[in-house]
Amino acid sequence: MNKEKQTRISEVGEFGLIDRLTEKIQIKNESTVKGVGDDAAVLNYSQKRVVVSSDLLTEGIHFNLMYVPLKHLGYKAVVVNLSDIFAMNAIPRQIVVNIALSNKFSVEAVEEIYSGIYLACEKYGVDLVGGDTTSSLTGLTISITAIGEAEEENLVYRSGAKPSDLLCVSGDLGGAYMGLQLLERENEVFKVNKNMQPQLQGYDYILERQLKPEARGDIIAAFKKMGIQPTSMIDISDGLSSEIMHLCKNSNTGCNLYEDKIPMDYQTKKMAEELSINPLVAALNGGEDYELLFTLSVLDYEKIKNDPDFTIIGHMTEAGEGANLITNAGSAIPLQAQGWDHSNRENKQ
Amino acid sequence: MNKEKQTRISEVGEFGLIDRLTEKIQIKNESTVKGVGDDAAVLNYSQKRVVVSSDLLTEGIHFNLMYVPLKHLGYKAVVVNLSDIFAMNAIPRQIVVNIALSNKFSVEAVEEIYSGIYLACEKYGVDLVGGDTTSSLTGLTISITAIGEAEEENLVYRSGAKPSDLLCVSGDLGGAYMGLQLLERENEVFKVNKNMQPQLQGYDYILERQLKPEARGDIIAAFKKMGIQPTSMIDISDGLSSEIMHLCKNSNTGCNLYEDKIPMDYQTKKMAEELSINPLVAALNGGEDYELLFTLSVLDYEKIKNDPDFTIIGHMTEAGEGANLITNAGSAIPLQAQGWDHSNRENKQ
Repeated sequence: MNKEKQTRISEVGEFGLIDRLTEKIQIKNESTVKGVGDDAAVLNYSQKRVVVSSDLLTEGIHFNLMYVPLKHLGYKAVVVNLSDIFAMNAIPRQIVVNIALSNKFSVEAVEEIYSGIYLACEKYGVDLVGGDTTSSLTGLTISITAIGEAEEENLVYRSGAKPSDLLCVSGDLGGAYMGLQLLERENEVFKVNKNMQPQLQGYDYILERQLKPEARGDIIAAFKKMGIQPTSMIDISDGLSSEIMHLCKNSNTGCNLYEDKIPMDYQTKKMAEELSINPLVAALNGGEDYELLFTLSVLDYEKIKNDPDFTIIGHMTEAGEGANLITNAGSAIPLQAQGWDHSNRENKQ
Repeated sequence: MNKEKQTRISEVGEFGLIDRLTEKIQIKNESTVKGVGDDAAVLNYSQKRVVVSSDLLTEGIHFNLMYVPLKHLGYKAVVVNLSDIFAMNAIPRQIVVNIALSNKFSVEAVEEIYSGIYLACEKYGVDLVGGDTTSSLTGLTISITAIGEAEEENLVYRSGAKPSDLLCVSGDLGGAYMGLQLLERENEVFKVNKNMQPQLQGYDYILERQLKPEARGDIIAAFKKMGIQPTSMIDISDGLSSEIMHLCKNSNTGCNLYEDKIPMDYQTKKMAEELSINPLVAALNGGEDYELLFTLSVLDYEKIKNDPDFTIIGHMTEAGEGANLITNAGSAIPLQAQGWDHSNRENKQ
């Protein structure tokens, strides 16, 4: 964002702002019949199922503008919604963006948020087809609805896991949470001494996990290529523990999760050590990793066993056995559902 | 809402709250394949076009909880979105509801909002299929996305008006704005003297227009029955003046609007007189009436001329003639686009 030119929203007017934010939109998907500019967008999904998901991010709860760049915020707000669409084994096609903002934000600030939104649209091949830009008395709220498509037979729900299915996860876990802890620490230092430069060297990976996460559309593409149909799937927004319990509850199964199998990056563990946090807590309860957690029939084991994108972290069991963490010492500890706290700031219906 | 029992959200937990809010959902539409309870809702619109619209309402900007009952708020939040779907000549089928709320709200308060949401779902035959309930540091934000369907040939955009088309509106205008002025006045009185009872007698109609508006699905049904296909349409959320300018801009036409034709209720005019407000301002710039503004070929004149649901308020002209109000005195005054002020608190992309 160019710091020199700051235009008050009142200078360009409401329609001027909309024009500035939407003038560069180019429709990418055949299913987008009519995008921005009418009472509603019009979509054509004649042969497919339509998949819809929506999230709301509020300032001070989901993001802190002290250290989250506006462009990253826009990008992430899109990505977290696309992640939900991918978690259905579906392909996102459109988003609708609602933003409420107080008058402390300039036109350039809103454009900066939108530049991140458009960057995500570009990267994931998604069309922005509508939304609402409005005032707020206090801070910034972004609510995004993502719409996608899938063949009916490819849809994967939370409810299809069977006992003995393999429990798998993409990528690694806990990084976004440890990135957040690092940003919070440096922010506290900065608040005390404005001349302090943040100490972020060597932690680029976990910072990116927090500030600019990606949704795992590549995994959905890999499933298709490899002929894999997960039996159940969910994205990891709240933390591994909470998501496993969702799969168990919806599928009416139990689960054994093995502590030593949980994939974590070197930086995640190093930061955890530096901050005296158990890295397992970051993986189980940290959230915001936006990896895919899914179950597979054991018949698919050969297809994924050597794929570095996936880690088998456990297996499903009968419902009566409960959802357990099997520790390195071999004891079984029941997984805990998350409360409504800092590390778990939203809950999806 | 039962004032005696107030449960903190932390007592029931996040998943407990979701369960309480969604346990009574019964799916009403065939197009709803999977509602709440997964990463995304799944919809089936195989033979139809999908129509999507979204709005965001923030406390202190769009509503004042000093005088807006929570149930009414939930109801209205749904209705304003359905109104956008009807404005495409489409039928709403699903909604997705995102709510952010601070810890000043109890579980019962959230349930009260949802009771209004469900009442609207019931009345309009719409399924609630998902959403997000999350925390806010400051007040209440509701963001709703509505999804509907239409045959492609029935869709009505803002862009289809032709010069000489009739400009028509359903219902009457300015009532919601005058209802708001009345509520604001009584709220000011109450703030000064807590023992004062509000003076609302005789104004039930304009209060209902503000607090519990309806979306004009009956008009869409009437169009179908009467064999009417509007050439362009928009719902009146910002005010007649602003909406006419949208139709003119999108259709590349001008317009003559006749002051003496604008339909207003007796209570609207009476309240305007009491508060020394020009009732024309309420109709032109007040907004929130959620009536439908549409254009018709003159060939359809016979079909609607005696229908009390509709009023012909003007006609479209060539673009070069501009959008004008023809006053009772016969002079033409250019219509003004709305700024971002109290009477016009949101703007749709």
